[in-house]
Amino acid sequence: MLKLDARTKLLNAAIEVVRAQGYAATSVDELCRKAGVTKGAFFHHFETKDALAVAAANYWSETTGALFAQAPYHTPADPLDRVLAYIDFRKDLLQGTPAEFSCFVGTTVQEAFGSSDEIRAACKASIFGHAETLVADISEAIRRYKVKGTWTAQSLALHTQAVLQGAFIIAKASGSATTAADSVNHLRRYIELLFNRKPTKRKTK
Amino acid sequence: MLKLDARTKLLNAAIEVVRAQGYAATSVDELCRKAGVTKGAFFHHFETKDALAVAAANYWSETTGALFAQAPYHTPADPLDRVLAYIDFRKDLLQGTPAEFSCFVGTTVQEAFGSSDEIRAACKASIFGHAETLVADISEAIRRYKVKGTWTAQSLALHTQAVLQGAFIIAKASGSATTAADSVNHLRRYIELLFNRKPTKRKTK
Repeated sequence: MLKLDARTKLLNAAIEVVRAQGYAATSVDELCRKAGVTKGAFFHHFETKDALAVAAANYWSETTGALFAQAPYHTPADPLDRVLAYIDFRKDLLQGTPAEFSCFVGTTVQEAFGSSDEIRAACKASIFGHAETLVADISEAIRRYKVKGTWTAQSLALHTQAVLQGAFIIAKASGSATTAADSVNHLRRYIELLFNRKPTKRKTK
Repeated sequence: MLKLDARTKLLNAAIEVVRAQGYAATSVDELCRKAGVTKGAFFHHFETKDALAVAAANYWSETTGALFAQAPYHTPADPLDRVLAYIDFRKDLLQGTPAEFSCFVGTTVQEAFGSSDEIRAACKASIFGHAETLVADISEAIRRYKVKGTWTAQSLALHTQAVLQGAFIIAKASGSATTAADSVNHLRRYIELLFNRKPTKRKTK
């Protein structure tokens, strides 16, 4: 089994605990306990809790980035199919409790946007950077389907992230992943309508 | 000038401070300072900080409920026009900084959903209760425009709240209300497409 170093253990602990209870409620002591490392080890790797948060946001970008890069939604030949497959993939990730499927950077920036510009910027880079990975497919779909409108591929890509972030909040409020999935269904339907694609039931796996 | 009682001052302070920095980061001491009341007064009115949060979520429902009830989006004769006017009204509220236009209950439930079921339930009641105020107009629009689909008026109403909650997070991350407004524009366009209404530029005021 892979043995993780103290730094990686702390980053994983931060993501797990912050998803469950938020950033400010999470103490350095609790993170050390969760990670099974000493406080000395914490401060060896991170000068402050905020420095850990910035590192965790970057780590979140890397690890989720790898997950998305390897996901099967890139395989369809049609760019619109790829965009819709991405939406379906996001819906498939809505499994378990909100602490398991919600977003570390969305939760963190919700609280820390005003108190730490470094945290805000790292969370922005994560959310906007992920949105950017959708722009090429959306742009190609706009050309392929000759869609005209006042919106850009960038703004639609970012809108998909807004819907997901909001869906996580609704899921937290309701205690149910189903309400989040409903919003993802609305997002899928919006994209189908934008591209004049006849609404389809997604293929069952 | 209206003189607010200590309880109302504390509720207003909670909403203002939590919108700016989140729930867990906000201490009872800070709320007392902000409200200009003693700690004795705080604990006279609220047994715990969590009890204040529940009361503040209910207060948020009442005060924003009154704002929405009196808003001009109810006046159009056509139900779809009322729904679109609601969306435009929400877009108009995106003024100033995220601390000024974001949602107290969305921020609070993002953090506290797992730690306090009373807070979660009060935030759910606020978000879902507001969504419910849109259902009659959406239902009437579905009948009027003979729209068929697999979605319900309830799910579309809740989706509008998911988009808004997510738009607040994107605004916090970017430090700009414009990105939030972009998502509200996408939401408006989705509703126009669902009801086969030709996309319109909203009337300038």
